[in-house]
Amino acid sequence: MTSTEDECRPAGSVPPPRATADRVRDTQALLAREVDCWVATADPVTGAPHLVPLSFVWDGSSILLATGERSIAGRGLASGNGVRIGLGATRDVVMVDGSVEAVPTGELDPAEADRFARRTGFDPRQTTSPYLFFRVVPSRIQAWREENELQGRDVMRDGRWVALTE
Amino acid sequence: MTSTEDECRPAGSVPPPRATADRVRDTQALLAREVDCWVATADPVTGAPHLVPLSFVWDGSSILLATGERSIAGRGLASGNGVRIGLGATRDVVMVDGSVEAVPTGELDPAEADRFARRTGFDPRQTTSPYLFFRVVPSRIQAWREENELQGRDVMRDGRWVALTE
Repeated sequence: MTSTEDECRPAGSVPPPRATADRVRDTQALLAREVDCWVATADPVTGAPHLVPLSFVWDGSSILLATGERSIAGRGLASGNGVRIGLGATRDVVMVDGSVEAVPTGELDPAEADRFARRTGFDPRQTTSPYLFFRVVPSRIQAWREENELQGRDVMRDGRWVALTE
Repeated sequence: MTSTEDECRPAGSVPPPRATADRVRDTQALLAREVDCWVATADPVTGAPHLVPLSFVWDGSSILLATGERSIAGRGLASGNGVRIGLGATRDVVMVDGSVEAVPTGELDPAEADRFARRTGFDPRQTTSPYLFFRVVPSRIQAWREENELQGRDVMRDGRWVALTE
């Protein structure tokens, strides 16, 4: 993507752009540190966009989410249309595009489900309404702060961290 | 919507839920104060969700955005599929659903365009690639912090602030 849409972020007085290796490191640290993210999906029937903050756990290679099986986000995640996830602040953003696999709560490795419950304070196995886990495997991750970081904002392409391959 | 998707936010030790009038006041203050928001759209062709942080201006009744006419966000905003905008923090969120009107940069009231440029530090009338303004008129706005605020999170319904009508 060489979209110019992000030009509309004001530059102001900003520090120089980070090197790619720094962005990869910052991105991995953010994924490990954060508990909440913005999850954008699209309604498979109406085509309407949806957005909701959800808690997540990063295991080093995938983002584990959980939401109601019949919720708008749940239906969007299960639709096969993919997902886009935003983390961090609007001026220190990590943007993840990925594929989504729905995992019934009873089929997730109990140790992983325990970790999710411990970290997020919420156990999707113990809800009154049916929940699903969703495993998001990133294909592309972008990281940028201000306009001067739009160039070189890909930190992962085709599922590979850029700094490891370039 | 009585979706249960948001149950997955951990409750923790949180303050008691705000009254509706307080949420309306907080929401209006956030809209007036913030410069950036998360803009979720859907690709009208592929159905894929998109998400990007963009700067905005709130005039008391609409959110003014600008992005590249040919960008993914621009195409999604122009698609007629609507938009969902998230503001604030993931645990102090304002979520806006609204209709979108594209406004060519030359057709926006110059005073309003000047205000946009001043506030965001970016003037869409002066880009090398073609930009559009997008006016988002909210139909529904939700505001919640933690799980205990999921009930009563509608602060605007059908384009009307709830506290003014209830």
